[in-house]
Amino acid sequence: MVFEGSEKKIEIVVSESIGDLRRRGRDYWEKLVSKCNAEIISEVKNEEVIAYLLSESSLFVWKNSILMITCGKTSLVNSLLEFIKDFGVLNIENVIFQRKNEYYSHLQISNFYDDLEELKNILPGSAWRLGELDGHHNFIFYYEQSESKFQNDKTLELLMYNLDDGVGRQLRSENLNLKNIRDILGLEAFFSDYIIDDFLFSPCGYSVNGIKGDCYFTIHLTPEQDGSYVSFETNDDNLSHDELVKHFITKLRPKSFDTICFNLTQLKELSGQTVINKCDHAISKKLNVSFAQHINNPVARTSSSYQLL
Amino acid sequence: MVFEGSEKKIEIVVSESIGDLRRRGRDYWEKLVSKCNAEIISEVKNEEVIAYLLSESSLFVWKNSILMITCGKTSLVNSLLEFIKDFGVLNIENVIFQRKNEYYSHLQISNFYDDLEELKNILPGSAWRLGELDGHHNFIFYYEQSESKFQNDKTLELLMYNLDDGVGRQLRSENLNLKNIRDILGLEAFFSDYIIDDFLFSPCGYSVNGIKGDCYFTIHLTPEQDGSYVSFETNDDNLSHDELVKHFITKLRPKSFDTICFNLTQLKELSGQTVINKCDHAISKKLNVSFAQHINNPVARTSSSYQLL
Repeated sequence: MVFEGSEKKIEIVVSESIGDLRRRGRDYWEKLVSKCNAEIISEVKNEEVIAYLLSESSLFVWKNSILMITCGKTSLVNSLLEFIKDFGVLNIENVIFQRKNEYYSHLQISNFYDDLEELKNILPGSAWRLGELDGHHNFIFYYEQSESKFQNDKTLELLMYNLDDGVGRQLRSENLNLKNIRDILGLEAFFSDYIIDDFLFSPCGYSVNGIKGDCYFTIHLTPEQDGSYVSFETNDDNLSHDELVKHFITKLRPKSFDTICFNLTQLKELSGQTVINKCDHAISKKLNVSFAQHINNPVARTSSSYQLL
Repeated sequence: MVFEGSEKKIEIVVSESIGDLRRRGRDYWEKLVSKCNAEIISEVKNEEVIAYLLSESSLFVWKNSILMITCGKTSLVNSLLEFIKDFGVLNIENVIFQRKNEYYSHLQISNFYDDLEELKNILPGSAWRLGELDGHHNFIFYYEQSESKFQNDKTLELLMYNLDDGVGRQLRSENLNLKNIRDILGLEAFFSDYIIDDFLFSPCGYSVNGIKGDCYFTIHLTPEQDGSYVSFETNDDNLSHDELVKHFITKLRPKSFDTICFNLTQLKELSGQTVINKCDHAISKKLNVSFAQHINNPVARTSSSYQLL
């Protein structure tokens, strides 16, 4: 049994003329997420944003934009195509569509190249791979109608691979409850004033959405013994990104991690961690993306063979 | 246009009772390689071994054993299954079946897990992954009827990724001939007394087989701009494996490379190169495999974004 933790992500900004997206009822969003084979599990909201927790990750809806993140075998491009069809391409101001590199890509319904074939005739955007093909990497499709609406989008994505064995065992243990996981992740340290919505999957796995004003954070955790993976993401620019990275790396002790930063100044290198592959790219005048793959101290990276048969 | 350079490999030892494998005519080997959608391009032989150059890599036939290496979209497991059917499972003494991790796995006909499903009912072997899931890694299936016949098998595999831009451009240039490539690879330094058979593919790509007594070397080169890859392999234990690795790394300057050693003492670390992931495993009493992923000096590993659209 394997689960692809690596996510796909869409961020869409629509023109103001179509009105407040939050007024579309939950039925609409249920239909949208069903297009990529996900379901809404629960929701929380505040004055700025509605956060839906999905069977495979998360959907956030603001007045003029949405952010949707899905993992597993979901075909997120289908939700993107449906959204464009529903609102009309002329009302689509900006789109970012990302796919992290996958480790069970043979199990996916489509790959990024297939997705581009679907997209390119509808949205005349551009696409890149950041990071080497033979290392961790990130695929990004970007479209803007006239100019980037993402200039204030300062987002940190932190993808952590191969957690420390002890932490992995804790996260897979049977009697875990939500509070245990929040404690393991140390959410209190940064997000005590966030509205939290979290969910424990069976037999393992955990998702959390948090919102405060128009800020969000979200964490998705797939602690399978072989290929454990945790993703963290936030647009909260009042938090120290360096401190956030250090916090989660210290708590979860992954063997390697990637940082993907949108419009952020360079992160500090952490002691004991080495960047082995990095790539900065201005995907638009006001949107810079930087990707870096970090590994923990190379001398510690002796692995066991993993028996399959 | 992409080409999966990463290889699959089978090594089979048969019982002596079935007679000299080399006496099977070329027709037989043509049929065998056609099962995985490859073709024989040419052959050379000496008193010990026949070496066939294939449309996708190589086949070597000794008296009681064969080695077959294929790349691209070939389904090598089918040739293995055909061979077992032809000679009878009771005449199969030993099998090693390897798959290197692939970067266009969505284009493959099968994956290693599928291959295991096909194999496990016929040959009661074991299988492992050496190396982390999120890094370079190698899948190995191993079967022995009674004991390993591979105890004298001292094989070095060297897989080189992302060649230096200058070298890559040279290897893709239009007016290249066979001698040019042999010179770029510096084959003369180690293999001047080998019988050589090599081939230049269109629009790019190069394969070479070399034989001397019961020793072989083989190199397969796919110099595509994005994801260039070169594999080298030899069972010649009279050569210095450390010197061989140093030679090819110096000539081709890959950004990263893997070494896979069968029954070899540990390779020296090269200056300017760092092992970021290694795994030693005794797959049988007399067969040890060690895998290591090396990268060149991390500070140099800033990559460009790669535009797809």
